[in-house]
This record gives sequence, C-alpha cells and structure tokens, in this order.
Amino acid sequence: MNLVIVEHDEVSWPEGLVRLTGARAAHLIDVLKAAPGAEVRVGLLDGPRGVASITGIGAGVVDLQCVFETEVPPRPRVDLLLALPRPKVMRRLWAQIAALGVGRVVLTNAWRVERDYFDAQILSPECYRPLLIEGLQQARDTRLPEVSVHKRFRILIEDDLDTLFAGELRLLANPSLGGTPSVRAAVSRQPAERVLVAIGPEGGWNDFEIQLLESHGFQSVSMGARTLRSDTACVALLALVHQALEG
Amino acid sequence: MNLVIVEHDEVSWPEGLVRLTGARAAHLIDVLKAAPGAEVRVGLLDGPRGVASITGIGAGVVDLQCVFETEVPPRPRVDLLLALPRPKVMRRLWAQIAALGVGRVVLTNAWRVERDYFDAQILSPECYRPLLIEGLQQARDTRLPEVSVHKRFRILIEDDLDTLFAGELRLLANPSLGGTPSVRAAVSRQPAERVLVAIGPEGGWNDFEIQLLESHGFQSVSMGARTLRSDTACVALLALVHQALEG
Repeated sequence: MNLVIVEHDEVSWPEGLVRLTGARAAHLIDVLKAAPGAEVRVGLLDGPRGVASITGIGAGVVDLQCVFETEVPPRPRVDLLLALPRPKVMRRLWAQIAALGVGRVVLTNAWRVERDYFDAQILSPECYRPLLIEGLQQARDTRLPEVSVHKRFRILIEDDLDTLFAGELRLLANPSLGGTPSVRAAVSRQPAERVLVAIGPEGGWNDFEIQLLESHGFQSVSMGARTLRSDTACVALLALVHQALEG
Repeated sequence: MNLVIVEHDEVSWPEGLVRLTGARAAHLIDVLKAAPGAEVRVGLLDGPRGVASITGIGAGVVDLQCVFETEVPPRPRVDLLLALPRPKVMRRLWAQIAALGVGRVVLTNAWRVERDYFDAQILSPECYRPLLIEGLQQARDTRLPEVSVHKRFRILIEDDLDTLFAGELRLLANPSLGGTPSVRAAVSRQPAERVLVAIGPEGGWNDFEIQLLESHGFQSVSMGARTLRSDTACVALLALVHQALEG
C-alpha cells in the first residue's frame, strides 16, 4: 500500500480527521509499523492526494489528520472494452487494471464468453470496488475506474459506444496479421486525447464481432505473433497504450 | 492450448508417433473435441513446430502422428533478472513469463526479499517446468526459458552476470525519476541483439543494490509514475521491451 485511500464520507471536514479500522489500519500497524507522529501518504477517492499525520493508534484503529493537495490527479487516458473473462481471471484483473490506470472499464458479452460468467459475484460492486481501490493504493492514484457490464454486445457497440466513448481512438488487439500496425504506430498516426482498447475472449472475437467493431471505428493493432491469455494481454496492452500516449 | 508441446523422448522417431495421456489428452478430447483424422498444431520442446494428425482416441489417450517443420523458432530476445517475489505471485508468473517470451530467467535474492521464499516448492523444476510449458502452449512457442536461482545477489552480479548475459543491453525498471528514458528510448539509443531487464522486489531494490546494478551496466528506464506490483510490472515490462525490440 503506497497510498492510503480514504473516502469523502470517512473524513471529518474541514479538519481532515479520519479514523481508520480494518485492513488499512492493520496494514499501517503491522506492515508499515506506523507510530504516532509519523506521516503517511493519503489520497481522497476521486480527489486529491495528500499527507496525513498519525495522531493516535489503538487496537486495530489508526487516527489520521490529513492535509490534501488542491490538484486532483488526471483521469487515466485509456479505457478498456473487455470481453468478460472467467471469474477467476477477472478477480485477478481488477487491481491490476486500476494500478495500470484505466478511466472506464466496459465488460461485455461475446460469442466465446460463457453466459454464466455474468452471474459471478466478482461483477458486483461490493466485490470489485475494494479490489480497484487496492490497485489505486498500489499505484498512488485516486481515480476510481468507472465500470459497466453489458450482456448484449451488439447493443453495446451499436447504441451505447458513442455515448460512453465519444471521440476516442479505438484499437482492437489482434494476433499479428500482416500489415497490422503496432500500438505505438496507431497512436502516433492519429493523436488522440483518449484511447479505447478492445480485448477479446479466450479464443478471440468471432468474425461478426470483428466486423461490427471495425465498422464502429476500431483499428486492428498487433501485439506480436504470440497469443496471450486474456489477463496477460490486458496488462501488456494497457502498458503499451500508456507508453504510446506518453510519447 | 494453442499448440500441443511434446518432448523429444515422447516421440517414436523417425515415424513421429506420440501417445498423449493426462492433461494434454484430456484437453484435446474434452475442450477441443478432437476426433480421429483431425489435425492439431504441435511443437517439439526446444525444437520445431509442426502439425499432427490424430490417429486414434481412447479413454484418456490420444495418438498423434507428427510432422515437424525444419526451422526452430528463435529464442526470445529478452532475459529477466527478477528479485524473487512471494511464492503465490511467482506461481502466477511462470506461465505468463513463458507466454510473453523470455530466454533466461534469473531469480535472485535482494534486501527486501524474504529469505523463506527460497524454500518454496514453486522453485523446484518439477513445479515450474509444467507451468512454463503451459505458457509456451498458450503462445505457440517451443523455446523453454532457462531458469536459475541465486541466493546471493552480490555474487550473482559481480561474478556470474557477465557469463550468463554477455553483451546484452541491461535495463533497470525504476519508478519514474526525472530524466529517466522510456524503455523504447533506451533500446533505440543502443541497439542490441538481446536485452536483460531487472525487476526489483516489492518495495524496490535498496541503494546498495541499485549502485551495484548500475556499476555493472544497468541503465534505469521509466515505466511511468505508477508503482506496480511485481507481477504486473513484470508482464508490462516484458511487453514494452518486446515491442521496443520489434522497432
């Protein structure tokens, strides 16, 4: 935990006092060996970062006095359209997605996605929100990715996409095809404020899905000749897009 | 499984006959619904890829007749020096490392690595070799990464490194420091046949370790301002180096 995230309604305003219990308090006490008077980095969820002084430590309780900066970290410039992976894989991905930096995550059905994946607990906010916050605390970010789940691929692409992702460069990761540009080439050819990347299910999008994506502005990019598991592909691709955006 | 890996001593030469049992046979029968006469992609471990005809299927048994190409896939041009992560994280990493493509993996101790990580089962070849092969089967590669485990960081760097990694460009992933070049900039500034990347433990290398690495030719590169968990950093960095090497 490189940043302790607190939520707006946990803070007594305007004094900036917070009483931590549970996992965050335990981490400060047991792992970081925090003592009264010490300072820790804090962040207000979807707000600014800051510094907190530890004003008291009790059994499983840590009291903080926070001073926040004025500036809020920018929203990550990458968004993710992900064919829903198996629940076990999705569980592992949440924190990594938030740590790498994603503005919005759209989870979608596809031909090769098993229907019952949508019943998984891991799609409930109670389950994924703490995992996203864990990723933010790792990466020292405060901007919680927005999440939506779409069971009907065609309606998502035809009706909802332009509202969710207006004006974004749209990329589609495909196993290497002749002449497919790299992520970097695609981003530098068409500079954009935000990039939306689509990652298919295990086994890939089917032909209909690829055509629908292409007819809605998605350009194929290559990630090399190696076929990756969807969680590996997700981490790799987010890293490549971020690096391409940074120039 | 996008490629069925077989080992040299599983094949009857020169006919190319293989009898599969266990996980590979089960996958062909249950997941790929393979039937006699069908063809599957095969690869000889550390040898060429090829195509196999299914000549027979029994209870948990699949018979193949393989025809291999003449050319062996090139060894991946990236090597990895990794401060040993927690066993749970390391277990997840093996297949991903092999899928992304690594020639050699060197696992090392460091100040912030817990000593007892070295006792973990996951460092025995019986345990990691099948996971590496799983990654190769995912990525359609045949080149098994070489693995070595080093309990003494200083001896590794001072005595063994030049033998293990002669003439490689050496990069050290550091949380963003002013003026640190990107992976791409470092690779394009100093073209090299092979690249060795060093990834530190949770909490990072200590000052002594960074100095020792720098005095042995490691150049710091930036992965952006976000601090990543070591498995996320590993996947992200391997993707960035591969893309940089591909131009």
